[in-house]
Amino acid sequence: MPQLSLLQKERLKYQPQLPNLLQDLAKLNVTAGTSQEKQTPTTLPELRETFSYLSKQDPFITFEISTARKGAPKKVGVVFSGGQAAGGHNVITGLYDALQKLNPQSILYGFLDGPKGILNNKTLLLNEASLANYRNQGGFDLIGSGRTKIETPEQFAAAEVTAKALDLDGIVVVGGDDSNTNAALLAEFFKSRDCKTVVVGVPKTIDGDLSNADIEVSFGFDSAAKTYSEMIGNILSDALSAKKYYHFVKMMGRSASHLTLESALRTQPNMVLIGEEIAEKQLTLEQLTDQMCDLICRRAEQGKDYGMIVIPEGVIEFIPEFRLLIDELNTLLATVSADQVQDKLSPKALKCFKVLPDLTKRQLLMDRDPHGNVQVSQIETERLFIEMVQKELKERSKAKKYNGKFSAQPHFLGYEGRACMPSNFDAQYCYALGHVTALLVQNGLTGYICCVQGLSGLVGNWKIGARNIATMMTLEMRHGKQKPVIRKTLVNLKGERFQKFVRVREDWGLGDLYMSPGPIQFFGPEELTEAPVFLS
Amino acid sequence: MPQLSLLQKERLKYQPQLPNLLQDLAKLNVTAGTSQEKQTPTTLPELRETFSYLSKQDPFITFEISTARKGAPKKVGVVFSGGQAAGGHNVITGLYDALQKLNPQSILYGFLDGPKGILNNKTLLLNEASLANYRNQGGFDLIGSGRTKIETPEQFAAAEVTAKALDLDGIVVVGGDDSNTNAALLAEFFKSRDCKTVVVGVPKTIDGDLSNADIEVSFGFDSAAKTYSEMIGNILSDALSAKKYYHFVKMMGRSASHLTLESALRTQPNMVLIGEEIAEKQLTLEQLTDQMCDLICRRAEQGKDYGMIVIPEGVIEFIPEFRLLIDELNTLLATVSADQVQDKLSPKALKCFKVLPDLTKRQLLMDRDPHGNVQVSQIETERLFIEMVQKELKERSKAKKYNGKFSAQPHFLGYEGRACMPSNFDAQYCYALGHVTALLVQNGLTGYICCVQGLSGLVGNWKIGARNIATMMTLEMRHGKQKPVIRKTLVNLKGERFQKFVRVREDWGLGDLYMSPGPIQFFGPEELTEAPVFLS
Repeated sequence: MPQLSLLQKERLKYQPQLPNLLQDLAKLNVTAGTSQEKQTPTTLPELRETFSYLSKQDPFITFEISTARKGAPKKVGVVFSGGQAAGGHNVITGLYDALQKLNPQSILYGFLDGPKGILNNKTLLLNEASLANYRNQGGFDLIGSGRTKIETPEQFAAAEVTAKALDLDGIVVVGGDDSNTNAALLAEFFKSRDCKTVVVGVPKTIDGDLSNADIEVSFGFDSAAKTYSEMIGNILSDALSAKKYYHFVKMMGRSASHLTLESALRTQPNMVLIGEEIAEKQLTLEQLTDQMCDLICRRAEQGKDYGMIVIPEGVIEFIPEFRLLIDELNTLLATVSADQVQDKLSPKALKCFKVLPDLTKRQLLMDRDPHGNVQVSQIETERLFIEMVQKELKERSKAKKYNGKFSAQPHFLGYEGRACMPSNFDAQYCYALGHVTALLVQNGLTGYICCVQGLSGLVGNWKIGARNIATMMTLEMRHGKQKPVIRKTLVNLKGERFQKFVRVREDWGLGDLYMSPGPIQFFGPEELTEAPVFLS
Repeated sequence: MPQLSLLQKERLKYQPQLPNLLQDLAKLNVTAGTSQEKQTPTTLPELRETFSYLSKQDPFITFEISTARKGAPKKVGVVFSGGQAAGGHNVITGLYDALQKLNPQSILYGFLDGPKGILNNKTLLLNEASLANYRNQGGFDLIGSGRTKIETPEQFAAAEVTAKALDLDGIVVVGGDDSNTNAALLAEFFKSRDCKTVVVGVPKTIDGDLSNADIEVSFGFDSAAKTYSEMIGNILSDALSAKKYYHFVKMMGRSASHLTLESALRTQPNMVLIGEEIAEKQLTLEQLTDQMCDLICRRAEQGKDYGMIVIPEGVIEFIPEFRLLIDELNTLLATVSADQVQDKLSPKALKCFKVLPDLTKRQLLMDRDPHGNVQVSQIETERLFIEMVQKELKERSKAKKYNGKFSAQPHFLGYEGRACMPSNFDAQYCYALGHVTALLVQNGLTGYICCVQGLSGLVGNWKIGARNIATMMTLEMRHGKQKPVIRKTLVNLKGERFQKFVRVREDWGLGDLYMSPGPIQFFGPEELTEAPVFLS
C-alpha cells in the first residue's frame, strides 16, 4: 500500500469546482446537441456496417436542465487503459460521486490492471473507503492500468461474460485513441448481442493527440506539460549558469509533438524539433544535424558553448529516410541475420543507415520487440543526435569553421510526467469528465466519449456533452488489414500554437530567452494555479 | 537575457523572513562565540604554519546586540564557485541588502563565471536594478559560476591585483569544500601580504557533504532533495500503476549519499544503496547485484515485476574492488593501450573488470578526462546495474529460481535539481547567510565561513555566527602531495537519519510503501512550504 506525503494529504482536502451545469444532476436530461465541428460529423459510409447501431445515433448529445427525476440505481465498471495520465483518479471519484448523487444505491467497480481486468473479471469495489486516499492524486494505482486490448471475437465474448456476471449497466473506458476505438467496437458488439451494458469513453493521454473540435484536450496533458516544463526550465537555468553543456532533451509524446511544442512555448530553449514539421519538409537526419551544428557554431562565435535542443520522442519516425530504413529492417530481419542486413538494404535506406552512430546501429539491429520489429521507442534519439553533432563539429573544426567546445548531456523526460499529481486544471477537468460519464450511463447512452468544453474559460461556465465515437473514426491499414481507428491529432502546422512558436523561435536560438516555469503550484494566486498550459 | 515566468514573477515579490537577530544590523557587534562542536575546534598543529594568521583567530565568532554604530562604506566582491545550488541569488541579495542597511554607500561587485572572474577582474556591478529580477530565483545565472580554482602562487597574485584594483574590503566565496579551502588559503595569503581584503565563505552544495556541528546543512541541499523526491515519487506512482518496469534511478551527489538518503526517506522506494554503507561492509559489485536479484525474485514470487532501486552517483567509488580497478586503469592507461590493459591488471582488479557489462568496459577504457584518468562520473551506474541484474536473472531463470519478467528503465536525476527555484527554506536560509557575510566583511573578519543555526526551529529564532575555516581542515594526499582540505562529511552510519532508514527499509522491499511528495510548494499550509527535508 502506498503511503501519503504531506502534500498528498493536503490534496485529499481539495474540492474540485464543478461546472454550474453539473450542480444538480437529477435535473439533467439528454438531448441532441451541436458538435463544434464545422460540418456535422457522420460515420464514414465504409464504417456504417461495422457500426450499424452507433452510426444511427446522434453525432453529439448534450444535457439540458428540466424537471428533476430520480435515477434508477446503476452498476458500472471503470477501467484504465494504457499509459498513466494525471487526473485518472478524479475521473473515478467524479463518476462515483455523480452516481451516488443520482442514486445512492448505485455500485461502482474498478477493473484491475487494465482491460485484462474486464476479460478475467478482476475488480475492486469502489466506495467512500476505497476512494478516500485517491482524491486528486496522481497515478492510476488505485486499480492499475494495462495495455491488453479488447478486439478479438473471443475477447468481446469474455467481456460480455463479465458484463453479465456483474450485471453491468455500463463500462467506462479511460483511454487514448486505440482504447476508445475498442470501446466503440465493444459498444457495438454489446448492442448486437442485446446486452444492456453501455460502453462510454474518456479522452486520456498526456500526448495530447486525442482531440478534435469537441474534445479540446485530453486529460493529463496539462500536468505532464507543466512537469516537463519545470524540468526543462531547471536545466536551462543550469545551462545558463554553468555555460559548459549542450543539453539534448528528449520528450515523451509518441508520434505527436504537442508536449514538446507546449513545453517549448513555456521555456524557450535554443532549438526545438517538431516532428510534424520535419515530415512536411521531408528533412533528413543529416539536414537536422546540420541545422543543429549551424546554431552551435553561431553560438560559439558569440562565446556561447552551451544551450538546449529539445527533441520529441517520435521524431525519427517523422524523418522519411529513417521511416524507410525501419520498414526495410522490419521486413529483412525476419529472414536475414543482422550482419547480412546491410547488403540487402535499398540505396536510400543504406545511406541513412551508414551515417548512424554505432550505438544506434546496434539498437536497430539487436533490440527487437516480440514480433521481431525494431523498437523505435527504445532508440535513444537524444544520444543519436549528440553523436551525429559531435562528428559533424569535428569536421567543421578541422575545416576551421568551428572553434568552440562541445560537451553534451542527454536527458529523457518521460515517466516523471505521466504519474505526477494532477494540476488543479486536470483535477477539475477530470472530476467533471467523471460526472459526464455517470450521466451517459444513467441515460443508457453507448459508444460516446465525454466532452467538457470551454476549458479556456471559468470552470463554472464549462459546457458538457458527448461525441459519438463512430463519427471520429477512419480506416487505416494496420498489419495489412483495413481497421477502424481514431486518427491521432498531430500538431497543426497552420494552427495558432505552432504559428506562435514559428514567430518567436528565431530569437530563441541566440538570445537565451530561457524561462523557468517552476513546479506546479496548487495554492496561491489563481493565474498560477488554475490556468491550463494551452492558454499561455 | 532569460525571461520570467508567472511563478518567477510571483517569487520576486516574496520577502524572506529574517532571524530576529538580523533585524537591526547596525547594533550587532562581533564577539567570541561558542562552537557547537563537542570539543573547541583548533587548527591542526601541522597546518599552523600554512595558516599562521588564521590559526590564531577565534575558532568561532558570533554577534551580540549592543549600541548601534554607523558602518563605514565597504567594497565587496562575490563569486559563485562550482556547481549550482538553489538559493545562490539570495545569498547575493541578502549580502547586498545588508551592506546597504549598514551603509548605503557600500558597493557590491559580482565576479563573472566563477573564480576566473577574480583572476581576470571581470565583474558586474550589483545594485537594485541588476538584482531586481533575481530575488528568490534558482540558478547562478546572474553572474554565472565556474570551476577554476585559485590555488597557485600566480593565481593568488592575480587575485591580489584584482582586489587592489577594485579596492575591495572583502571577497565572498560561495562554494563547497574545495572552494572554501581555497578561500581560507586566499585569506591567509592576503593577510601575509598586508592586503586589507578579507575573504569569507558560504557553505554551498546540493551534495550536503559540507557540514559539521556549526554548519547544519549546506544551502541548496533542501531544494535539490525536494526536486529529486518529486521525480522519484512520480516515477514510483507510475511503477505501481503500470506494474511493468523496474526503475533504476541514479541520483546526483558525488561521493556522499546524503541526497539519496533524504530522498529515499521521503519516497520509500524498494531498495536504496548508500555508498558509505557499501564501503564499510566492503561489498562487491557481485554482492550488490545479488542483493538486487534476491529482492527482485522475492517480489516476483508475489507477482510483482516492478519496483525501484535508487543508486547514489558515487556508489562505484565506494566499492573497494572497483576503486582498485580504477586506480590500476589510471596508472596503466598512461603507458599501455586499451586493448592490452587486461593482461596487466592485478587478479583482483581483473576479476572486477571481467564481470562488467561491455558498455561499462568501453566507458572505462575509452572515455578519459584531459589528464588521462577514467571519468568515474561518466560511468552510467544505473545501466551497469541493469545489465548485471539482467545477466544474473537469466542464470537464475535457467536454474528455475526465477520466474518473473524483468524490464528496466534507467534514470539519472541531476541537473534538474541543482538550478531549481529555491524552496522557502533555502530562500530564507540563503538570505540570512548573505546578511552574515555582510557582517563579517563589515567587521573585517577573514577566513571565516558563515553559520546560521537552529534551522529546525522558527526562522525568527535562528542563530548566527561564523566558523574559522582553518579549524575545519585536515591534510590529505592529493596527486602525491599533502594538501590542506576540508574533509567531506559523509553519511554517518551511526547517525539518526541513517538509523531511521535502517529501521524502515526492510519493509520497503516488498511492501510498496511508496510516497509521492509532489512538487515544491511556495504557497499554502506552512508545514508544506516551510519545513526543510531533514525534519521529515
